[in-house]
Amino acid sequence: MKKVTIYIMPKQGVLDPQGKAIQTSLNALGFSDVEEVQTGKLIELVVEDHEDIDKRVGEMCDKLLANPVMEDYHYEVEEVART
Amino acid sequence: MKKVTIYIMPKQGVLDPQGKAIQTSLNALGFSDVEEVQTGKLIELVVEDHEDIDKRVGEMCDKLLANPVMEDYHYEVEEVART
Repeated sequence: MKKVTIYIMPKQGVLDPQGKAIQTSLNALGFSDVEEVQTGKLIELVVEDHEDIDKRVGEMCDKLLANPVMEDYHYEVEEVART
Repeated sequence: MKKVTIYIMPKQGVLDPQGKAIQTSLNALGFSDVEEVQTGKLIELVVEDHEDIDKRVGEMCDKLLANPVMEDYHYEVEEVART
């Protein structure tokens, strides 16, 4: 079994209203030293072992998990014991 | 300036309906080898330098960014040039 951790963030220059809202809230809570906030998605998959797992994860991201126009993604694959 | 990357995931045993929905969609798209999906949040902050930056990031997470009852978080701090 493999655990795949996928990190998805908005592309450079894409508006991030949620990030803006968080920044405003943090500044209002007294964290005025926060100058920029970006929010993204973190997805963890447990997947059966495959020799072309990189290809499959790329397909999953391109087909469903990430928006190729607005988001960038990268991922890490690690071995896990079957639960 | 520091860049702080915060990784927020549901605690073990907390229901993740979004994760379930993604798993169902991936299986329907033919990725039947996906056995488990968990979704979380990825937040990147650009923060002015502070000697007690760890304390401040912990406060930001506890006060706003993460739900201490349902979520776990960890973070990484790295140096960035001022943009």
